[in-house]
Amino acid sequence: MKRKVREILSWYGADNPGTLTNLARLLNQGKLGGSGRLVILPVDQGVEHGPGRSFTPNPPAFDPRYHFELALEAGLSAYAAPLGFLEAGAREFAGDLPLILKLNNRENLSSDKDPEQAVTGSVEAALRLGCAGIGYTVYPGSALRTEGYEKLQALAEEARSCGLLVVVWSYPRGAGISKEGETALDVSAYAAQIAAQMGAHIIKVKPPANFVEQDEARKTYQKAGLPTDTLADRIKHVIQSAFNGRRVVIFSGGAARGEEEVYEEIRGIRDGGGFGSIIGRNAFQRDRADALRLLDNVIKIYQGKW
Amino acid sequence: MKRKVREILSWYGADNPGTLTNLARLLNQGKLGGSGRLVILPVDQGVEHGPGRSFTPNPPAFDPRYHFELALEAGLSAYAAPLGFLEAGAREFAGDLPLILKLNNRENLSSDKDPEQAVTGSVEAALRLGCAGIGYTVYPGSALRTEGYEKLQALAEEARSCGLLVVVWSYPRGAGISKEGETALDVSAYAAQIAAQMGAHIIKVKPPANFVEQDEARKTYQKAGLPTDTLADRIKHVIQSAFNGRRVVIFSGGAARGEEEVYEEIRGIRDGGGFGSIIGRNAFQRDRADALRLLDNVIKIYQGKW
Amino acid sequence: MKRKVREILSWYGADNPGTLTNLARLLNQGKLGGSGRLVILPVDQGVEHGPGRSFTPNPPAFDPRYHFELALEAGLSAYAAPLGFLEAGAREFAGDLPLILKLNNRENLSSDKDPEQAVTGSVEAALRLGCAGIGYTVYPGSALRTEGYEKLQALAEEARSCGLLVVVWSYPRGAGISKEGETALDVSAYAAQIAAQMGAHIIKVKPPANFVEQDEARKTYQKAGLPTDTLADRIKHVIQSAFNGRRVVIFSGGAARGEEEVYEEIRGIRDGGGFGSIIGRNAFQRDRADALRLLDNVIKIYQGKW
Amino acid sequence: MKRKVREILSWYGADNPGTLTNLARLLNQGKLGGSGRLVILPVDQGVEHGPGRSFTPNPPAFDPRYHFELALEAGLSAYAAPLGFLEAGAREFAGDLPLILKLNNRENLSSDKDPEQAVTGSVEAALRLGCAGIGYTVYPGSALRTEGYEKLQALAEEARSCGLLVVVWSYPRGAGISKEGETALDVSAYAAQIAAQMGAHIIKVKPPANFVEQDEARKTYQKAGLPTDTLADRIKHVIQSAFNGRRVVIFSGGAARGEEEVYEEIRGIRDGGGFGSIIGRNAFQRDRADALRLLDNVIKIYQGKW
Amino acid sequence: MKRKVREILSWYGADNPGTLTNLARLLNQGKLGGSGRLVILPVDQGVEHGPGRSFTPNPPAFDPRYHFELALEAGLSAYAAPLGFLEAGAREFAGDLPLILKLNNRENLSSDKDPEQAVTGSVEAALRLGCAGIGYTVYPGSALRTEGYEKLQALAEEARSCGLLVVVWSYPRGAGISKEGETALDVSAYAAQIAAQMGAHIIKVKPPANFVEQDEARKTYQKAGLPTDTLADRIKHVIQSAFNGRRVVIFSGGAARGEEEVYEEIRGIRDGGGFGSIIGRNAFQRDRADALRLLDNVIKIYQGKW
Repeated sequence: MKRKVREILSWYGADNPGTLTNLARLLNQGKLGGSGRLVILPVDQGVEHGPGRSFTPNPPAFDPRYHFELALEAGLSAYAAPLGFLEAGAREFAGDLPLILKLNNRENLSSDKDPEQAVTGSVEAALRLGCAGIGYTVYPGSALRTEGYEKLQALAEEARSCGLLVVVWSYPRGAGISKEGETALDVSAYAAQIAAQMGAHIIKVKPPANFVEQDEARKTYQKAGLPTDTLADRIKHVIQSAFNGRRVVIFSGGAARGEEEVYEEIRGIRDGGGFGSIIGRNAFQRDRADALRLLDNVIKIYQGKW
Repeated sequence: MKRKVREILSWYGADNPGTLTNLARLLNQGKLGGSGRLVILPVDQGVEHGPGRSFTPNPPAFDPRYHFELALEAGLSAYAAPLGFLEAGAREFAGDLPLILKLNNRENLSSDKDPEQAVTGSVEAALRLGCAGIGYTVYPGSALRTEGYEKLQALAEEARSCGLLVVVWSYPRGAGISKEGETALDVSAYAAQIAAQMGAHIIKVKPPANFVEQDEARKTYQKAGLPTDTLADRIKHVIQSAFNGRRVVIFSGGAARGEEEVYEEIRGIRDGGGFGSIIGRNAFQRDRADALRLLDNVIKIYQGKW
Repeated sequence: MKRKVREILSWYGADNPGTLTNLARLLNQGKLGGSGRLVILPVDQGVEHGPGRSFTPNPPAFDPRYHFELALEAGLSAYAAPLGFLEAGAREFAGDLPLILKLNNRENLSSDKDPEQAVTGSVEAALRLGCAGIGYTVYPGSALRTEGYEKLQALAEEARSCGLLVVVWSYPRGAGISKEGETALDVSAYAAQIAAQMGAHIIKVKPPANFVEQDEARKTYQKAGLPTDTLADRIKHVIQSAFNGRRVVIFSGGAARGEEEVYEEIRGIRDGGGFGSIIGRNAFQRDRADALRLLDNVIKIYQGKW
Repeated sequence: MKRKVREILSWYGADNPGTLTNLARLLNQGKLGGSGRLVILPVDQGVEHGPGRSFTPNPPAFDPRYHFELALEAGLSAYAAPLGFLEAGAREFAGDLPLILKLNNRENLSSDKDPEQAVTGSVEAALRLGCAGIGYTVYPGSALRTEGYEKLQALAEEARSCGLLVVVWSYPRGAGISKEGETALDVSAYAAQIAAQMGAHIIKVKPPANFVEQDEARKTYQKAGLPTDTLADRIKHVIQSAFNGRRVVIFSGGAARGEEEVYEEIRGIRDGGGFGSIIGRNAFQRDRADALRLLDNVIKIYQGKW
Repeated sequence: MKRKVREILSWYGADNPGTLTNLARLLNQGKLGGSGRLVILPVDQGVEHGPGRSFTPNPPAFDPRYHFELALEAGLSAYAAPLGFLEAGAREFAGDLPLILKLNNRENLSSDKDPEQAVTGSVEAALRLGCAGIGYTVYPGSALRTEGYEKLQALAEEARSCGLLVVVWSYPRGAGISKEGETALDVSAYAAQIAAQMGAHIIKVKPPANFVEQDEARKTYQKAGLPTDTLADRIKHVIQSAFNGRRVVIFSGGAARGEEEVYEEIRGIRDGGGFGSIIGRNAFQRDRADALRLLDNVIKIYQGKW
């Protein structure tokens, strides 16, 4: 095994070899295999935003098999989705690439003031589908976060004991956080720390904006002269906030947008020491050829070739 | 074993030998081993205050291994942290010093009127990580305290049956308590009593200020002529309130501040019969050399050498 | 066994012999053993009112062992306290007198409009501590009473199946009851009935005042010409309301006050057919010698010697 | 509590206060209460030998109430019997004396080469009947002993956690032991040791005969010059073999026989430091008056008055 | 922590940090602490051989406290015993030295053709007594070994998940093995391998004699020219057979005998790379002073000083 992968596994000393095995599967998969970097395809927008809005821009994406094929053909590290999407391809694509069962989900048919995700899968389901791990979303700062954290605690304990990875989507929300604050540097760093302290093996946060939400954090940053101007600077602080780089943190791609904008962001993540990306809409809402080209370019950037 | 340690163990007659063994481990560890005094390093600020604010003042503290090393090198009695921080060092530092798994935590991304902690760990996790005990925070006086007490009851019962220690952080809060009242003498004494009645083996409260919050308590104190002028006087009353000194009560160090101020407070705790300190920010937010010097001085004070 | 005790046991035909054995233990203990009368020492004020206010008037009472000794030396029937206080003496005083584990408690750091008690112990704990029974407080009339009743239901069912006694503190409270009404005759009678209907073996209520809260009750009493002038009259109605005297009802002593006042009340309870008293503050807030004298006099009153 | 009882309780440091409470109950009951000596009435012969053979010599003994009354009137320490006999008197005699539920039993309708007892009760039953403990027979040396030990392990663990005593009847049997060897000194000592190592609180063995079964033991005794001539000598060795006197060992009375023979044996048990007797057939197979006189004399011997 | 201890812990990569913590406790305890060598005091002869034969040679050894004191005063690494012996000292000696609960035991009152051990303790008991691990005997080659292996499998799995060590006594027996063959080199090596393959963390076998039992093994050894003349040669092969030295193997001392003989054997164990000894009868059957001197010499040999 590549030294870089060995090194990453060494950070997870409290986990059993089963969990390390699954982590190694992700880190050795696809075009980035062995580099210590990851690109994951997540497709939970069917639940999160509805199918019409999510898949009409690229109708083949209505078909669950499309996403398995896309992730495989693009040479990605893993594919993450809710129960149904995984069940619809797990036999056909068994053994082709690591799967992550997204265990909680939230539809947006109600505009809840206090967002909350429902548990829609289980560790048993992850095992029977041959998944490498479970995925779970927490909403730090939200009114219902306590219940969310406690469900994660129980699911993560069970998953770890079965040798599964725990991937946490950490999305700050709620009355105490401004809209801009949801991607503030201090808040993103905080979100990464919370997931790491909950025992997440892989953490997904949004790329941090050049903005600081909390007064106390701002004072501390200024006093320490923490550089925050470039995305790389800010990514570096988020990575530092996840156990000084000893937890795998990857960044979401957000809404579909111009390619150049995507590449620029990926370069910032790479230069700041981010471990990779989780790219959904920017992949499956483009047509197949475009998506494959974009993902290939993203991978090249992480390989330092571009 | 030192006579002082034997004496302390004798106060816990309802506990099984496993719990006594873990209590002995803390009392025999480090530079204060055998003295009946304790200094514990707690690092939950990554969750409680966010990583930026907590660790930027001393960047090595972003690394989970730093805290194990700091506690060891300083000769402290134990290290307490949430799941993630312990998992990130438990294999590497196995057997080096007693660990306490902080089982509930609260991030401050929401300015809750009614504070609430989420359970983020388990007794099983404490056992598999080789911990000597569990830690748990209650908020006496807060609106959601009932649920908090009941979760503690269940976790503590399970922990005790497995031979683990129960360490309770007792922090009064809530609409019925003024800001100043949170550290009032009567309220601190009350907080210690509540934790003791819940079956805590070690109790952490804040050092009591020279202020009394509740009218009934003030009348009683005045009638009895209870001395409250010096910190030592007030510590004495808190210790008395924890089963007349038959439960181990330690005091938090609070926000980072001047060394002399810290030492003065430690002398008050010592002279009032406090069992020790739990010093987080005043340790890990200083650079390593300063922190080690400060902790060494604190220990010297408890040893009566300073 | 004394005939009186046999007769009382005969009222509890649905209970198993284990529960009867524990009831017999209380009824055979101490100076009132065999008389069918009981005096219990309850010490939950450390949690209910805070340690400063509760124990400063008589500082030896900070020590958990003090209360075991006081109850023993006074020849009382049982000692009731929360988990911590019992744990701190259960080994040392094992087998000396019947213990009752007070399973729920409420601190008064918050001035809740709607009082609520937290469960802070368990039936398992009662067994491992060698208790004769569990204690539980309900607040008839309060907003959160339903949850309180339902927790009692579950705990009482479990306790009874293990042969433990169920002692219920029944304290009317809440928006629908006037302050004076909390000890109204109709309300006290009602509180006793509710506890009896919940399956309590021993019921604790406050001595009823010469006041009727509910209009319907007042009309009925007047129509029937129910005598209510003397305390004995009113006690008689409360006892009647607890299954016509076929459940053991005891009365609380309330805040510390003049001895004569205490004795006068005890005579009223005795003459009305009350089964005894549960005397906390009037015992442990006096110095030891005074407390022993007072308790001895109370016992003499119940023995009909005074 | 008497100092002797306190001292005995102190030997059981790994037990919870509930178990100590029940041990104290036995040690404080009856005419020997407080002396550190015990006499228990066991009536399992109805199952072990059949009712005809057991109760026809004294027909009132067919009635389950007879044995409760006999034990009470004689001032014994406890009454031990199988489920049915206890159920038939537990309500009527609730609280009168400590009961021990004999959890396994063996009828002799089959002349098994390899004796085996059946579990005929449960810890739940012991709790609902208000018992102080459970009783269990093991047959060291027998072909089926492994299963017997393992059932005891599980029942004893459960009983201890509920605060019950564990009383073990340890009767060597089997192909490897000669008939005479069943009560050999080395074998009796061995039987006591096995029960103690299984965690028994009270151990019942047969009085050892002046005979040594195992060659290795004989050599060791001879080399050490162990005195074995008098019963007191031999009892002393059995007591020594049960943790050097730090476990309560009592001796069975065996088949009914002449009074003087009984008294002589009791004196030997007393003089060798035995903790008491468990006397069945010699009590209930005599008529009531005779039995009461015999038991009274036995008690007087243990009191050193005779 | 000493480098040697760290190195040994590194061999147990599939174990959780809790188990490593307990392994570190043994390796850091006593006079050999940090050296990577161990001397353990086992006292199960009370059950295995009977108390008379075991303790009469040194009567203080009848007292359970004697063995705790002996192990402590001699500076040993741990004390292993059945439930009763540990229960009788666990509170008094809590925290003084690592304890190992011997979970199965066999009395020799029956001369079974097919030896079998009974499970007489539990993982729960090990936790509540504060033990570092469990001990278990298997009889490779015996008729009933399958059941023995399967009970070990279940207990070991449970113990490991709770962070406890698993120590396996591996004693070949049975119709297919000659008496001499029980300590044959090939058989001892085989016994060590079996325990290692069952997941034992520490393995106890008897020192191998210069004899080979199985024909196939003899041929292979001869072909390879395996040196077997000295004890050191043979120990080396046993250590090699336990994962090439990556499992801790210790050797039993056997029956009490002359000191020089003991020392000679220890030197052979040391020179062959054995990790230490488990010395029962040669310790507790001598008088205290002799035992302490012998154990001190054994330790000096392991320290290379003698």
